[in-house]
Formats: sequence, C-alpha cells, structure tokens
Amino acid sequence: MSDPLLNNSAASAAVDTIAAVSTPPGRGGIGIVRLSGPESTTIAEQLVRLRGPLEHARARFAEVLDPTADEDDTQSRIDEAVVTFFAAPNSYTAEDLVEIASHGSPVVLDLLLRQALTLGARLAEPGEFTQRAFIAGKIDLTQAEAVRDLIDAQTLAQARLAASQMGGALSARVMPSKHALLELIALLEAGIDFAEDDVSVAPEREIQRRIGAIRPPLTELEATFTHGRVLHDGLTLAIVGRPNAGKSSVFNALVERDRAIVTAIPGTTRDTVSERIALGGIPLELVDTAGLREAVDEAERLGIVRSRQALADAAIVLVVIDASEIGPAGHLHEEDRTILNSLEGRSALIAWNKCDLLDPDTEDTLAAGIESSEPALLAHVDLPVIPTSAVTGQGIAELREAILKLATGGAAAEPGMLTSLRHHRAVTQAIEGLDAASAAATNNIPHEMVLLDLYRALWALDSLTGQTTPDDVLNLIFSTFCIGK
Amino acid sequence: MSDPLLNNSAASAAVDTIAAVSTPPGRGGIGIVRLSGPESTTIAEQLVRLRGPLEHARARFAEVLDPTADEDDTQSRIDEAVVTFFAAPNSYTAEDLVEIASHGSPVVLDLLLRQALTLGARLAEPGEFTQRAFIAGKIDLTQAEAVRDLIDAQTLAQARLAASQMGGALSARVMPSKHALLELIALLEAGIDFAEDDVSVAPEREIQRRIGAIRPPLTELEATFTHGRVLHDGLTLAIVGRPNAGKSSVFNALVERDRAIVTAIPGTTRDTVSERIALGGIPLELVDTAGLREAVDEAERLGIVRSRQALADAAIVLVVIDASEIGPAGHLHEEDRTILNSLEGRSALIAWNKCDLLDPDTEDTLAAGIESSEPALLAHVDLPVIPTSAVTGQGIAELREAILKLATGGAAAEPGMLTSLRHHRAVTQAIEGLDAASAAATNNIPHEMVLLDLYRALWALDSLTGQTTPDDVLNLIFSTFCIGK
Repeated sequence: MSDPLLNNSAASAAVDTIAAVSTPPGRGGIGIVRLSGPESTTIAEQLVRLRGPLEHARARFAEVLDPTADEDDTQSRIDEAVVTFFAAPNSYTAEDLVEIASHGSPVVLDLLLRQALTLGARLAEPGEFTQRAFIAGKIDLTQAEAVRDLIDAQTLAQARLAASQMGGALSARVMPSKHALLELIALLEAGIDFAEDDVSVAPEREIQRRIGAIRPPLTELEATFTHGRVLHDGLTLAIVGRPNAGKSSVFNALVERDRAIVTAIPGTTRDTVSERIALGGIPLELVDTAGLREAVDEAERLGIVRSRQALADAAIVLVVIDASEIGPAGHLHEEDRTILNSLEGRSALIAWNKCDLLDPDTEDTLAAGIESSEPALLAHVDLPVIPTSAVTGQGIAELREAILKLATGGAAAEPGMLTSLRHHRAVTQAIEGLDAASAAATNNIPHEMVLLDLYRALWALDSLTGQTTPDDVLNLIFSTFCIGK
Repeated sequence: MSDPLLNNSAASAAVDTIAAVSTPPGRGGIGIVRLSGPESTTIAEQLVRLRGPLEHARARFAEVLDPTADEDDTQSRIDEAVVTFFAAPNSYTAEDLVEIASHGSPVVLDLLLRQALTLGARLAEPGEFTQRAFIAGKIDLTQAEAVRDLIDAQTLAQARLAASQMGGALSARVMPSKHALLELIALLEAGIDFAEDDVSVAPEREIQRRIGAIRPPLTELEATFTHGRVLHDGLTLAIVGRPNAGKSSVFNALVERDRAIVTAIPGTTRDTVSERIALGGIPLELVDTAGLREAVDEAERLGIVRSRQALADAAIVLVVIDASEIGPAGHLHEEDRTILNSLEGRSALIAWNKCDLLDPDTEDTLAAGIESSEPALLAHVDLPVIPTSAVTGQGIAELREAILKLATGGAAAEPGMLTSLRHHRAVTQAIEGLDAASAAATNNIPHEMVLLDLYRALWALDSLTGQTTPDDVLNLIFSTFCIGK
C-alpha cells in the first residue's frame, strides 16, 4: 500500500476512459459522442444536464451544456440530447459506456468531445471501442475485423459475409480443427513430459491419422478464399477487342445505361471508361477500352497504350469479337487471334457479339465453325464463348453468369469463408505446419521437433480464434489423460 | 360510419409513418434509422429481432434481420443494433418514435430503410421529423428553423445563437409585442362588433399610445439584424492596396499561417487567395488580392481584374498602405488615394502597415501627418486607421477588433437576435403595419381600415411565433372586456 512504485504501476495498468464521435462525419439529424471506461458516467454527467439519473439501457433527455458560455442559465444550453448509459459488462465494450446523441451538428459534437477530453477522457484511437470489446473477450479477432468489413461493405453480399463473420462463423469453422490439433499436441506433450511415468508415447501411425483428420477441413476452408477474396475486394474486368467489335455496347449493356459513347466509327473510344457494378454481390469494376489495332493517329495510339495497360491489370478479360465479320469458313480475324493468343493462362471469356446481324443459317454455320473448323484455336485458348447481341440484349444475362462463374470459381458464398489475406495466410501456415509435422513424423524425427511444427500450426489458427495459452494445453493434458497419480 | 367518403377523408387525414437515416451520410461506428408515426413500433418489430419488448425510453439490444437472405436462421442476421422507443407524446415528434442504431454501414442502413418502406413507412422529406414536432405544437417555426441552423453552424457563436433560438428566445422576445398588439386589435374589434351595445370605442389617442408602446421593442429587434445576419451568414473581407504594401503578410498574420506566398517583389500575388477564419464567432472569408496599379504584363493585368472583382464583392474592404513609403509631408501615394476614393460609402478600414520600418520620430510625424496635413482626404474617407506590422505582429489584434466592430456594427451577440432574412422581413412588415395603422388613426380613417393594418402587423409576427386564430382574438375580447351581457 505504501510502496509508491506499486501504486504507480497499478495506476498505469488501470484502463482509461476514451471518447469519440461515433457517427459518420458531416451534418445530420443525429450525431453521437461515445464514452467508454470507468469515468464515462462521471464525465457525461458534467457534459450534460440530465433530467433523471443514468440507469442501464435507459435513454434520458438532457441538455448539452456550453461550458465556455456565460454563467447565465439560459445561455449555457447549446443543444438537447438523448443520453443512454450501458453499465459494465453489458455494453459493447464490456465497460461502462455512455452515448450522447445530440443533433448532428459538427460544432456541437466538437464541443462535447473537447469538453470530454478536458474532463479526463482520452481521444479514442480508430477502432478502439471494438478493440476493447476484443480485449474483454466479448469477440475474437475475426469478429472484430468483421465489424470493420460490415461498415466498409459496398454490397449486400459483402455485408452478409461480414455479418456471418461477426457472428463468429469463421472462428466456429476453424475451432474443430484447432481443438483436434490441441488434442494431438497434448498427446505428444504428455508423451514427453511424463515419459518417465510410463505414459505410452503415441505411435507414428496415430500422429499421421490425426493430422490426416485435421488437414481436410482446413484445405477446404483455404479453397473458399478464391471466392471470398473477390467478394471482399471486388475485381476489375477489362473489355478488349478489335475496333468496332461492339465493346462499348457490351459495356453499356452490362452497366445497364448509356455510359460509354457508341458510334459506328471504329476507334470511338479513346480514354478507358470505367464503371462499378455489383454482380452476385461482387463489386465489379468494368473497364471499356480503345480497340486494339495499328493506330491511325496519336490520340488512338495513346488510347491503345491505355487498353493494353487495362488488359494487363484486369483480373478478368472479356474479349468482344464481331461475329458478323467472321467468314463462312469460320476464320477469326488475325487481330482477334493475336488478342486471344495473348491471354494464355489468364481468366478470360469471349462475347461472340453482333449475333443479331447473322441470318439463322450463317449462325449455324458459325456455331459449327467455332466448334469444328477452328478446333486448334479453341483447344489452345479454351475460353467460355457466349453469343451476345448488345442491341437485342441476347446473351447478356448469360454473359453476366459466365463472368460471375469466372470470378467466384463457380463456388457459392458460404458462412465463414476466408475473405482477408491475413486469414488466408493463417490457414495456409497452419496447413504448412501440419505437413511439416507429418513429414517429420514419417522420418521418425523426435516428438519435440514434431511438436514445434504443430505449435506453428496452432499459433496460426490462434491468430484467427484468439490465443491458446500454455494453460490450455496443460488443462487438456490433465483433463483428457489419465495420468494416474 | 358507413359513408365511404367520410371514411376516406378520415384515412387521408391520418398521419402516416415516416422513416429516414438520421445520421450523416457515410461510414462510421454508429448509424441510425428513425421511424415516426403510428406504425413505427409495428414496423420496427419486423425489421429487427428484439431481446425484449419495446418500452418508452428503454434501449433494447436487437438483431437486424436480412429479409432477402435464406430462411436459415444464422444467415438472416446482418447486424446488431440498439433500438430505442419513445412513446407519443414524449418524443421529438410527439408521435411514437423508434430509433434503430446499427453500425454505420451504408449497406445495412439502406437495407433497414428499404425494408421499412416495404413494410408501409414513407421516406421522410428533409426536415419532416422537425416539421412534425412543429405541427404537434412542440416547437414554433423559429425554433424549427433553429434546429437547421444549429446543424449547419460553422462556429460556436453560430451554434449558441441557434441554440438560444431553439430554446424559443426569438419567440419570447416577440411575444410581448404580439400580445400588446392583440389587445389593441381586440379593443378595436370590440368597438366595432359591439358598437350598438354601447361598448366605448377607443379614442384615437389611446390607439396612438398603444402603437407607441408596441413599436420600440420591434425596432430594437430589427436593429439586431445587422449583427445577427453576419453571425448567421458570415461575410467576405477583401485585402486590397498597392503592390508590395504587405497585403499577403497582413493576410497571413490574420489567418495565422503562411497561406499566401510573400516575396519582396511587387506583384507576387496574382490569383486571389482566400481563407476562412472565425472572428468573434463570425465566419469570415479573407481574400488576398493582386496589388492595384498599372499592370506590367498580361498575367498581372488579369490578376488586377480579379482584385477589382473581389473588392466589389466584399462586405468589408481592408486597404493596406505601406506607411514607410509616405513622405515626411504625409502625402499619400496617388494610387492609394485612388483606392480610398473608390471606397466612399463602403464598409472599410485601413492597415497602416510596415510600422516597424519607421523610426519613432518619423512615426510621430506621420501620425501627425495623417491627422493634420491630410485632413481633407481623411474627412472625405473617414475610415478607421490601424497601425500594423505584419512582421512584428504589432496592431494585428487591434486590426481584428476593428474588423469585428465593422462586421457587427459594434453590437454584442444577444439571445433572440434576428439572423434570417425571413425573420427580418416579418419584423419590418410588422413595423410597417403599425406605422400605417398609426397614420390611418391620425387621419380619422374608420377603425375597420386601421384594423386591416394592425392585422397585417399581427400576421407578420404570427410567421415568427405561430398563428393567431380568430378564436384567439375573440377569447381575448371576451376575457379582457366586460361586455356586461
């Protein structure tokens, strides 16, 4: 009690009270200043004149005081507010939390916040309220990240994914693997720690069996990243092709409005034109480009440089080919051939455009042509081909579907899919740790070394679900093994 | 009951339920969807899954439902929210009001709002929640306007003014005049309506006495508009003068940072540079301009055109004169003289700059020079002169004060001052009505005609405080007069 050093350390360990404006910046009907921490009620009671005592989950009418004004009573009221108190631990942060909802006036909110800081609160760091919820153990790290993703969501599908992660879907999915891994670790730890006590050491066969059970759910989870990533981040699709193939018309049909200028003159588009659409909940940036050919002038040449850049940057390439220009023999134009050859290994598809200009007979010939007279080309390129007409709308729905299939790898959205690079890295590291442990066990390397690899896998999963402490391992050892003494 | 027309009119008279996002647009920790009207609880209960029944002023944890998702229970939750219900009449709108505070995710807020509209709510018009408070008689029109002004406030002084108006300061100030006017009207109405019943008609002297008592508080109120208007709207101050007089240095000193480029080369500033500062709570747009002289090149000529435009547009003109260039005889440079002559009738002041370059003796001579050898000029211009040095900071505080005095007309801010053109027009119309009534009474024009003018004045005040009904007049007649039968 009398040791000042001890007192000092106790003081620095104490949690402080944080304050921030929690509503978006700008003007609106309502703006909220939020306080969290042990002093939040004391500070709030000095910021406003309450019409009743603070009580858990009770909204109180109050007057926002203007401490810088004259002492005159009528002068000192700057706004009216509704103040809601949530008592620890039944609040978002698990601490005492007060929300002061005044009008959404930046001046009033600024005054409230400044005054809160004067009265001893600290300006909250970005995300610090959620961080406190995490530290208090109310949510794990993936749930905290999901709060951010939900706020940042641009489409409903993204919001849904974030909501399922916020509800703990990812952690729930990882947890069985982690638990099984923990059991294996406990088995080996027991084998080592208590070897002299005749606890039977797990045979290599048992280690492999267990790793073999832990691994598949993780590789399955890892595979959801293809879809989860594009759902989270969105992607860019470049529309390329020869001049006048109808790229801008296809672009306009996909964005459902006349965004890009369309004329019958080849080379109309120069600057790349881009527009954001949502396709199956995925934010998709469509980029219309200048036609690829030998440029006739400097403006077109610069446009083509931009086209090639857009083609290089895009996650998916949509090649628009003018089907009405294909000869009856089904020969592709040389420039189309060049474009298709450049797409090897890329995620791409073909819009077989201007189908409305073909007479039914020719169309049959062409369809046959695609599948018969150019087998070498198609075998080489191997891209989905969608017959379209931007004019009649034919094939546009199918084109959307084909794009979506390319974007998602054909998988449906599912709860707990991997959306962030951090999560993906954690899962791949866990798999790598398991594989290394498996290899080590095969080579009869001592269990201490196998354990190092297993711990590596465990720590990787920990970064998703929250930390495993040495106590967790010991508890599991003592609870699941009959030590016998 | 069975008359469909009656039912129809009852239905159309019924108040509908409105919904809107009440927090500022954008992303943030908290976003609020607000519902007001008879169906607000019914709708809210379908938007969220509550963890307890709605109860007045009670904040309830809830899950925001995603009606468009699968029926699967875990899928259908898109966010968590705190839902607060305020039962009529104890809410902002005096109607049943529900606030759903979710995360500040535009996607979630959009989903909530759309779903509320699907469930029968109507998208609220801008300001409609406040309009309902007004219609319910919770606030008058000036208080409603003050809510908007508070949200739009840029400075604390503006917010304070709005807060005092929101508290009813303007209405309170107008009310005694209105009441006195109503009494006079009642007196004359009684004289007319009941003339045959021998109620004595007010003599002309009494009418003049009463108008004379009503008028002064209104003219006093009218005078507050000079200050109230600039406090509400802010104003623009142009800094003009000869090249190299130190305009940009004075500008930088006033904005308290190196905003404008300063060199020793005359004609450094070309484009006008502007910055917003707050002076005594008034938002002040300072505009630094190119020096006024015969231009040496095209760029300077264009700069000078802009300077003259800024000078013409500004509410206040600050002329910077290089005091170190004035000869011992105290003669102003011809170009300075031209500038000052152009300012007749304008709100302007002079910064007597570069005082640090004067030796004390010269300064005395100059001070004497201003007051003695150029009396004709100064008598003509009659502007405040502030000796300044942007280099040493001398006189900058005095300059601010002088600007503030010009801006406010020397008046201090006071509760209930007039800030909007609408309010000012109402007060001047009331004064005009009184004056016309007074003139009519003087000329012994029949009381019916005097009454018309008085009603005109009353209606003008009504537009500030809320409407007077014929019943109000009759009630006053019956309550304050002894009719005797």
